[in-house]
Amino acid sequence: MNKALLLVAHGSRRATSNDEVRAVAERLAAASDEYVLVRAAFLELAEPLIPDGIEQCIAEGADEVVVLPYFLSAGRHVVEDIPAEAAKAEVGSARVRIAPYLGSAELEEVLLSLAAR
Amino acid sequence: MNKALLLVAHGSRRATSNDEVRAVAERLAAASDEYVLVRAAFLELAEPLIPDGIEQCIAEGADEVVVLPYFLSAGRHVVEDIPAEAAKAEVGSARVRIAPYLGSAELEEVLLSLAAR
Repeated sequence: MNKALLLVAHGSRRATSNDEVRAVAERLAAASDEYVLVRAAFLELAEPLIPDGIEQCIAEGADEVVVLPYFLSAGRHVVEDIPAEAAKAEVGSARVRIAPYLGSAELEEVLLSLAAR
Repeated sequence: MNKALLLVAHGSRRATSNDEVRAVAERLAAASDEYVLVRAAFLELAEPLIPDGIEQCIAEGADEVVVLPYFLSAGRHVVEDIPAEAAKAEVGSARVRIAPYLGSAELEEVLLSLAAR
């Protein structure tokens, strides 16, 4: 399997916020050799949008794309919009899987470490 | 020092999103004995607002309040609004310190673990 990881954020009118997400994707690529590629995509306001992001991963050789919602709460964007946008991608024989959103993780250790800085 | 930790999120019209933040604050309280109390507060749309949250921590005995922005990007809310709201609190001789926002942490390990679930 050639797995790709697609980090999906909301997207912002502020270019620097979108660049922050792209930088996280780059750090993920550097931190793991499980994925043949790691990219960022956005629900709106920035590019690539989710279907394009998925299709680009496949065009670059992925046969499985893990969509990872970079969101803190399980609102409509996470529950409805991201799955709906992901379903619009033309994936051929590739698989798309949606991972749990960031806010569902155990963030205690990370948060306590920030608080202590 | 009696330190309190105040987890500050944006606040949502969806009560369940605000409850998610309060649940994170409760898990932080359970995960650490460094703070005499851990609470949640909100920039808008939910209660308590930031100045009230800080004042409540002090009323409950804290002499230092660490404000921890539960935000993923360093937008205006993190850079300007949270410090401005925190400065409105009546703190007497207590200290308020603003910690780095969540998105500035190294989230690679947490994100890769979600992607693998």
